Amino acid sequence: MSQKPSVPKGTRDFSPGEMLRRNYIFDTVRRTFSLYGYQPIETPAMENLSTLLGKYGEEGDKLLFRILNSGDFLSSVDRSYLATADSSSLSSGICEKGLRYDLTVPFARYVVQHRDEITFPFRRYQVQPVWRADRPQKGRYREFFQCDVDVIGSDSLLNELELVQIIDRIFRDLKINITVKINNRKILSGIAETVGETERITDITVAIDKLDKIGKEGVRQELIQKGISEQTVSRLEPILGLGGSTVSKLNELGIIMQSSQVGMKGIAEMEELFGFIASESLAARVELDLSLARGLNYYTGAIIEVKADDAAIGSICGGGRYDDLTGIFGLPGVSGVGVSFGADRIYDVMLQLGLFPEAAATGTKALVINFGGKELSELVQITRSLRDSGVSSELYPDVARLKKQFAYADARRIPWVIIAGSEELAAGQVTVKEMRTGGQHKIDISALPAFMLAESGGNKS
Amino acid sequence: MSQKPSVPKGTRDFSPGEMLRRNYIFDTVRRTFSLYGYQPIETPAMENLSTLLGKYGEEGDKLLFRILNSGDFLSSVDRSYLATADSSSLSSGICEKGLRYDLTVPFARYVVQHRDEITFPFRRYQVQPVWRADRPQKGRYREFFQCDVDVIGSDSLLNELELVQIIDRIFRDLKINITVKINNRKILSGIAETVGETERITDITVAIDKLDKIGKEGVRQELIQKGISEQTVSRLEPILGLGGSTVSKLNELGIIMQSSQVGMKGIAEMEELFGFIASESLAARVELDLSLARGLNYYTGAIIEVKADDAAIGSICGGGRYDDLTGIFGLPGVSGVGVSFGADRIYDVMLQLGLFPEAAATGTKALVINFGGKELSELVQITRSLRDSGVSSELYPDVARLKKQFAYADARRIPWVIIAGSEELAAGQVTVKEMRTGGQHKIDISALPAFMLAESGGNKS
Repeated sequence: MSQKPSVPKGTRDFSPGEMLRRNYIFDTVRRTFSLYGYQPIETPAMENLSTLLGKYGEEGDKLLFRILNSGDFLSSVDRSYLATADSSSLSSGICEKGLRYDLTVPFARYVVQHRDEITFPFRRYQVQPVWRADRPQKGRYREFFQCDVDVIGSDSLLNELELVQIIDRIFRDLKINITVKINNRKILSGIAETVGETERITDITVAIDKLDKIGKEGVRQELIQKGISEQTVSRLEPILGLGGSTVSKLNELGIIMQSSQVGMKGIAEMEELFGFIASESLAARVELDLSLARGLNYYTGAIIEVKADDAAIGSICGGGRYDDLTGIFGLPGVSGVGVSFGADRIYDVMLQLGLFPEAAATGTKALVINFGGKELSELVQITRSLRDSGVSSELYPDVARLKKQFAYADARRIPWVIIAGSEELAAGQVTVKEMRTGGQHKIDISALPAFMLAESGGNKS
Repeated sequence: MSQKPSVPKGTRDFSPGEMLRRNYIFDTVRRTFSLYGYQPIETPAMENLSTLLGKYGEEGDKLLFRILNSGDFLSSVDRSYLATADSSSLSSGICEKGLRYDLTVPFARYVVQHRDEITFPFRRYQVQPVWRADRPQKGRYREFFQCDVDVIGSDSLLNELELVQIIDRIFRDLKINITVKINNRKILSGIAETVGETERITDITVAIDKLDKIGKEGVRQELIQKGISEQTVSRLEPILGLGGSTVSKLNELGIIMQSSQVGMKGIAEMEELFGFIASESLAARVELDLSLARGLNYYTGAIIEVKADDAAIGSICGGGRYDDLTGIFGLPGVSGVGVSFGADRIYDVMLQLGLFPEAAATGTKALVINFGGKELSELVQITRSLRDSGVSSELYPDVARLKKQFAYADARRIPWVIIAGSEELAAGQVTVKEMRTGGQHKIDISALPAFMLAESGGNKS
């Protein structure tokens, strides 16, 4: 076997440097979720296909990774059928499980399954990988990580406010400048109603969701192609083009949509939410964006999306309110709202903008040089005393040339090297060398842990 | 749909209470690995089947979860073949990927794939789930979590010593009393050689590995059944039955096996390792166990297994040295040693023995009661000031009856409730109620964060 082994297309290994940087993101996200009283859950990588199928549209069903039934999976399949079967019909006979596609549907399944143990309103967060059989491309993976935060069982718009606070705090901590765009599904319904196309809301929202990408003219063409009349499109455009502050947009909308009950409800919700937001001092810009739809049919109220101001990349966080997500599993009438942070895109933005702190580079603070021989047990003790004080340390395991051991410290970016030859040990001392500066200190063995703790800031990894 | 949805057989949801307890284990394990200079990596859930197949024996191949190729997976399968195919031959035509079965083989694949970026000796740890299509039973799951720690590219027995130190530190921190059993594959080879059955080492080790379960007589019968002569078995038994201290066992073995070169090498290794261990002050008992084999053919030196002293459960940690794990992927001659901590069994032991600290029960420290009305924005500010100080807090999102809000705090085990009605707010104060004692304090709003931080110990979750 001379060919190097590899990972499946669209999947990745995470090496130590990447892990430390990724954990910097995950730790920030988790710490903030927890600060807001959200509790962690985890669900299995595999779900029953009955849980997953039909939840993500036809396209989503195709992108599910299916797991072959174990054992003699053909035993329940009719032989004569095999010769004529197509892939999609056969797969349902030989696969009962699939890999989770997002964290929202497993969460809905979780809530219904565990409803008797849950105290509502239920605030949960979940940080786990998801899998999609998408065509891999730059920045799009088949295994990627979502960080979801949702509250379920409360209609209050305070929840939307808190999600905006959470978004603001996380990206402020990560030093990413962002704009939070907010819309409301009820306003989109109101617009469709107002232009006389209540039934065509999906076509209309799918088209206007592309305003960013294909521009006003592109949206016009797509709408007309879908059979929306020129006249309707002409009534739609000034609405989507409303300018000015959020307050003035909402005021004008209120006049345009006054005959739409659902639309007016949406306006009232946005007025309340933006009223809350106005008394916050946020780092993020927060704005009403009437073209925001996020294509997902299950949103019923607020729709939220976050863009990085200084990087040309899609949304790095998004979500909204859904009034009946658990209904598909037999528990109707439970309202929830949540957002999902895209860890992989956030990683890419931070790497591009150089936002990762240098300290996230290595874990080990000190390398004890191994001279072998009869002093070895003393070196073992010295290393242990450092660890007992919380200083991440290594004793080079092999008796190698000094040059090789120093090269190891250098490659691993270990900041301190501890040299304790027989003469030094006899004097009860060690030499501590700072790799960056080359500076050396002679220190009593008993004082070493305190010195290293002070110099290295302890085990920050 | 009236039936409750569920998770696939052998898999589990982890609810908030379980998550906090599991993270207590994971945090302890990760902190210790990091203290010893090990660095984290992660590998994808899916590996190419070519990476996985043939690495776990015939039985292991059967227990791999295979992932159906996406798209028209039958397009490359001959139609006429379909009618006659059996499950196992068809599966190789329609599946190219499988879920990882352990963390060792993906690690070996990782090392070979990334060898040009790695600084050796390479110390890595990895905490991830693995999947096996085993028959589920109490304490055995199809998705379970391993915490592996390995060093690769060093022959030094200091690595074995450090693994024993890591084991000792982790279980001491978790307050689990343990016995660490150590053997050496070379000693097992030496025993087989000494009794004149060099070629039968696998049969012999598989049988004696069961000494714990089936007793001396059971092992005897199994060996004879496998065609080992009565005479050989009679020569084997006194060796396995060697009593006394580790030092005296090794001495006697040295006499019995003096004609076996590999056996004497194993004894020398164990003498060196137990020499190191003798100068440690460990909480764990560490002993030589000549019947320990762990069935895995890839071990070439030390074999390590950990049992909990106070719980009747299998091993909770185990591993050993392997001299050629990366050879299967084209990189021969790289020696490594490592152990794997079984998170699920450790969890079960700790639950059974009541070892989880009470503090791991909830994250939220304070609930702010929501009275709605015009003071709501003040309650939002109070909640934010708590979070800004690092106190995990919630503002009850809905304007519900006081009784309901208190019941929520109770069910969620939130220790403090903050009551700020309009009168209190007018006086610049809040009432803080300690749920456990029912005790109340009136506190100035400006002093609240400092008070809560002191009382709750901040956000420890």
